[in-house]
Amino acid sequence: MTRSDGRAADQLRPVSFERGWLDHAEGSCLVSFGRTRVLVAASFTAGVPRWRKDSGLGWITGEYSMLPRATNTRNDRESVRGKVGGRTHEISRLVGRSLRAAIDLSALGENSIMIDCDVLQADGGTRTAAITGAYVALVDAIEWARGQGHVKATAKPIVNSIAAVSVGIVDGEARLDLHYDDDVAADTDMNVVMTGDGRYVEVQGTAEGEPFDRALLDQLLALAAQGCADLTELQKAALAS
Amino acid sequence: MTRSDGRAADQLRPVSFERGWLDHAEGSCLVSFGRTRVLVAASFTAGVPRWRKDSGLGWITGEYSMLPRATNTRNDRESVRGKVGGRTHEISRLVGRSLRAAIDLSALGENSIMIDCDVLQADGGTRTAAITGAYVALVDAIEWARGQGHVKATAKPIVNSIAAVSVGIVDGEARLDLHYDDDVAADTDMNVVMTGDGRYVEVQGTAEGEPFDRALLDQLLALAAQGCADLTELQKAALAS
Amino acid sequence: MTRSDGRAADQLRPVSFERGWLDHAEGSCLVSFGRTRVLVAASFTAGVPRWRKDSGLGWITGEYSMLPRATNTRNDRESVRGKVGGRTHEISRLVGRSLRAAIDLSALGENSIMIDCDVLQADGGTRTAAITGAYVALVDAIEWARGQGHVKATAKPIVNSIAAVSVGIVDGEARLDLHYDDDVAADTDMNVVMTGDGRYVEVQGTAEGEPFDRALLDQLLALAAQGCADLTELQKAALAS
Amino acid sequence: MTRSDGRAADQLRPVSFERGWLDHAEGSCLVSFGRTRVLVAASFTAGVPRWRKDSGLGWITGEYSMLPRATNTRNDRESVRGKVGGRTHEISRLVGRSLRAAIDLSALGENSIMIDCDVLQADGGTRTAAITGAYVALVDAIEWARGQGHVKATAKPIVNSIAAVSVGIVDGEARLDLHYDDDVAADTDMNVVMTGDGRYVEVQGTAEGEPFDRALLDQLLALAAQGCADLTELQKAALAS
Amino acid sequence: MTRSDGRAADQLRPVSFERGWLDHAEGSCLVSFGRTRVLVAASFTAGVPRWRKDSGLGWITGEYSMLPRATNTRNDRESVRGKVGGRTHEISRLVGRSLRAAIDLSALGENSIMIDCDVLQADGGTRTAAITGAYVALVDAIEWARGQGHVKATAKPIVNSIAAVSVGIVDGEARLDLHYDDDVAADTDMNVVMTGDGRYVEVQGTAEGEPFDRALLDQLLALAAQGCADLTELQKAALAS
Amino acid sequence: MTRSDGRAADQLRPVSFERGWLDHAEGSCLVSFGRTRVLVAASFTAGVPRWRKDSGLGWITGEYSMLPRATNTRNDRESVRGKVGGRTHEISRLVGRSLRAAIDLSALGENSIMIDCDVLQADGGTRTAAITGAYVALVDAIEWARGQGHVKATAKPIVNSIAAVSVGIVDGEARLDLHYDDDVAADTDMNVVMTGDGRYVEVQGTAEGEPFDRALLDQLLALAAQGCADLTELQKAALAS
Repeated sequence: MTRSDGRAADQLRPVSFERGWLDHAEGSCLVSFGRTRVLVAASFTAGVPRWRKDSGLGWITGEYSMLPRATNTRNDRESVRGKVGGRTHEISRLVGRSLRAAIDLSALGENSIMIDCDVLQADGGTRTAAITGAYVALVDAIEWARGQGHVKATAKPIVNSIAAVSVGIVDGEARLDLHYDDDVAADTDMNVVMTGDGRYVEVQGTAEGEPFDRALLDQLLALAAQGCADLTELQKAALAS
Repeated sequence: MTRSDGRAADQLRPVSFERGWLDHAEGSCLVSFGRTRVLVAASFTAGVPRWRKDSGLGWITGEYSMLPRATNTRNDRESVRGKVGGRTHEISRLVGRSLRAAIDLSALGENSIMIDCDVLQADGGTRTAAITGAYVALVDAIEWARGQGHVKATAKPIVNSIAAVSVGIVDGEARLDLHYDDDVAADTDMNVVMTGDGRYVEVQGTAEGEPFDRALLDQLLALAAQGCADLTELQKAALAS
Repeated sequence: MTRSDGRAADQLRPVSFERGWLDHAEGSCLVSFGRTRVLVAASFTAGVPRWRKDSGLGWITGEYSMLPRATNTRNDRESVRGKVGGRTHEISRLVGRSLRAAIDLSALGENSIMIDCDVLQADGGTRTAAITGAYVALVDAIEWARGQGHVKATAKPIVNSIAAVSVGIVDGEARLDLHYDDDVAADTDMNVVMTGDGRYVEVQGTAEGEPFDRALLDQLLALAAQGCADLTELQKAALAS
Repeated sequence: MTRSDGRAADQLRPVSFERGWLDHAEGSCLVSFGRTRVLVAASFTAGVPRWRKDSGLGWITGEYSMLPRATNTRNDRESVRGKVGGRTHEISRLVGRSLRAAIDLSALGENSIMIDCDVLQADGGTRTAAITGAYVALVDAIEWARGQGHVKATAKPIVNSIAAVSVGIVDGEARLDLHYDDDVAADTDMNVVMTGDGRYVEVQGTAEGEPFDRALLDQLLALAAQGCADLTELQKAALAS
Repeated sequence: MTRSDGRAADQLRPVSFERGWLDHAEGSCLVSFGRTRVLVAASFTAGVPRWRKDSGLGWITGEYSMLPRATNTRNDRESVRGKVGGRTHEISRLVGRSLRAAIDLSALGENSIMIDCDVLQADGGTRTAAITGAYVALVDAIEWARGQGHVKATAKPIVNSIAAVSVGIVDGEARLDLHYDDDVAADTDMNVVMTGDGRYVEVQGTAEGEPFDRALLDQLLALAAQGCADLTELQKAALAS
Repeated sequence: MTRSDGRAADQLRPVSFERGWLDHAEGSCLVSFGRTRVLVAASFTAGVPRWRKDSGLGWITGEYSMLPRATNTRNDRESVRGKVGGRTHEISRLVGRSLRAAIDLSALGENSIMIDCDVLQADGGTRTAAITGAYVALVDAIEWARGQGHVKATAKPIVNSIAAVSVGIVDGEARLDLHYDDDVAADTDMNVVMTGDGRYVEVQGTAEGEPFDRALLDQLLALAAQGCADLTELQKAALAS
């Protein structure tokens, strides 16, 4: 019972964060979880949407998309089909919700950050890579905004660090950070978004095949907690460099 | 610290299932969780979509929608806006996935069941009421199909019963089956879909405010397990009548 | 030459109005014409759309829709197809126009009422049931608004009562209130919307098969006038209860 | 009480039919009712849509549209807005229904005719001009098809001639063939589609202001019958030339 | 090697401009290049879109569309398909850009002109006919606006006259003003928009088959220059009449 | 009169081609023209669309898109807006047309290649970088297909190499390969697509400000020819490595 890429069951793929990959974006990061590569752009705008004016609060939202040939066979563009699919909507909302948990919106002030996550290549775990990389781009965008005076020098808008990982049951074994081969074979698939201090922001577990019992759920939660802790360390290192 | 409708923290709202509410649908159910009312229609069609032909497997899918005035203030129709929103997509997919966990698709044979969940009135927990009621309508549709000879007399397509409930943390207290007043006040909101024998089909927990720790997560999971067990009994009673 | 449901040619189906079926809507009514069931919600909003501001006049508009499994075989949702069909548009416009004939828009003041008619089950005559039920919901919404002070105590915005019925020629016989079996067999189909004092708001007659002559037209108009008068009495009784 | 263009109350505007205005279409007609000008193209195709195959019956359908600057102020294109409006849908359906009443679809055989009515200039009565002109283009398209052998030499697909006119009550006076100035002032507006032998295909009357009584309805029906008879003569003359 | 309509290789088709074809539009022109007929409406509006306010500059934009039966076989309407095709977009943008080159937008003042080009019949060269006719309609709309006082008596908003023609290589021969038969046979197709004094506004050449060399390009440019000069004379004559 | 990036007027930006940037695509290339970066994926599929079956010919088509934060300020996604803009359509069509000029479609056989050009970062010249890089990806996809036996060992589907460059007049000076700063200042902008042997596939010149005369056009054409020749050498080097 070995994984197709040779990893141990509780082992992350090689993870990298290339900060500042884009020249225009206030924060950006090309994040890789193995062969999964997501380009994240954090776009800062002074001001908030009309419905949020005079609230004293900022706004953070996310959009997730996949290039047509990110996957093994080509998918039609959602722009050409004329509508955004359910999966895209679902992940976009998850990205926004997850990153808002990082931020004290009143310390951000009436400023907006839009986080675009474009999957350049997909090999499983695109949403968790997107969220984990987005945290890095978000920090850079906020530091840029502080440098420009949009955010006060003394404000602390970043209150949590955020990382995400997928876990699943494959052939009865709990595995961390599923790549595509794991994913298609998994009976249960769970995405977990956690803070740097080990609390939960999102827990989404789905039985693809057999329903799972409480014991397996506990195994998966433990594995995810370890994975998010490891990712938190890697984020710290990337932001320190 | 009392709930606006006077319930105990671990108490379901009054639940009812009106089977056969529609004359045309092969299975139907008007399900109420308190003031939340969802009309479920299970439409049986012999045959499967083209991409599934000759697989020997059936197909079950779901669509969720809300009438414009189901809510306290009116929402524009998605048909008029010209696109289905992210939340609708997300719940439709959840309904389909959850109900497929009830069924052995090979025992169903190459037949399709479309489950429409239309929220006539919303007071929190519309997706969990929809799933719980959909199980009842689904059973009726399959028994209808058996009566018509579309499903073999000896086949056992129904392998699990399915119920769903929401739980959340309000003012630090774990509460079962959130109605609207609970929902807007909740720090954490979790929807849990379980089988009648207590296994998990879906676990979706979201920190709306503060991230939550493992202890709270365990409390919520326990409460949900109890709620789903109670709903399972109510489903059995409704199907027996 | 008998009707499939045993009615006399000039006989309405059993008609019922369940007022206040919805908790949130300012006026609501579950109306049944036999097996045809339409849920009407009248949503009151203080103020009018921008193009009507400072006119001193109110605004009333309607939307009609059918649940996917209201009919004998399931229809795709218009929200999923991404556009509203011609028939839906046509009936929505008819509902709005018909109900505006009930109202003195200057006595209503700068307030808006949106009337949603959702067909839960269809057995012919859905548009006439919708209009007839909508009048009941509209009266309740206006009385609610008067109670809240949005409409003056002395204002009389309701100037006509409105009822609608279908008539048609089936096998050469003029019939009142066509149900589905009548409808598919009808050569000519006419929908008539009338005031409580016997005047016309809309007359829409269509030869589905043979063109019809003036004598048949007169027969249909007479039958419709009688049917609308009967419905007017039933509305009065419902509003008095 | 005179009309802005000086006509008598029961007088049609100058009507003209320019047959064969288009080189490509199998039948075409530029029809004018006064300043209202509609270009009609009848496109013949051998064969019918899939759902009608092997029925032995033909198919006729219509589409109506208005150029953006047909009217006094410019309207946005429906193609640019991305959806067809309710009024356009409604009239397109009316055109198709009206013209199908002209034809014995079994004598037409499994052939399709699409009737496009594009309003180049609008001054009231665009739908009635469209239908009246469409009959002329339809006859030409069928004769073309007969010449090509698509319709049998002995077949008689044209069983009725079809004409349409609008009538209305303006300042208490019943008027024939409303132009724009009449139309905006009319209390009641009725469109009537009739066969050459004086039977009804469609009757659509709407109270724009006060509901109308039976006496006024009878007046309008009489006026429309006369107008349609006059248009029938003009069609005959045009087709004879 | 003769053209199907008997013209010399360097000969335009018969060209005509019917000014004032529409009663409502501020400027209009039915332009014919042989059997290609385009109805152009220039709609003048005082004021500019919001993003251009207080710039002191006017705005001119174009929309191009084709009636469904303008062509030999019928095309579906873009309004019905729900989206504007790439070719339509491309030509609409070209029309707007070309006509803006005619105008000093500051002399026009903060006024807008929308140019609608609707192809009633297509026989090749629809975009060049549209642009050439649009210039005539535009001049009339501006003179109308001057008459109304929207444009100053002394202002000279028209700084260039604009004409357009297509040229191409058919069977190795450079030909002017391609009609449909030329167009389908052409190896290279070029549309050229020029000012009355012989300068270029747009040059768009495409190798449909073999790539073309510089010598052929020079031949085409010379032919186009001559064609545009001829069209300029015809425009002058039309505007003088 | 110097360029903001210090280049000579006739100098290309640094150009690079990273072949095989994607793991899944049959051919891929990350192409850079200075800071403009486009990810090209060439997706090979055995077989052709239905309308092309049994023609013996292959099919090549292109799609162009820009990530929302490719530009200096963020643009909304076309998928979210629900329609593809005119500029996107125009460039997609240009990419497909240009690359088809590289290929003998009968030597390709009944196979399809879809070329996706996604602009990751935009600094002017995105369409010319896309086309130039697409040629490289296309060659790799065809060689892959030959290796798999989809294209015959002896077939020569690649008949031309294709490169593209923009040229323009800035401050009266003809400049090669416009970056963003040049582009916004340019009076005339021309995109030229050429074969490796110096023939034209597309010539698209637009006067953004003043119309341009023949002398300037000749200057631009000469500059473009030199630029395309240089790009052809760089493509050869990349493909040889």
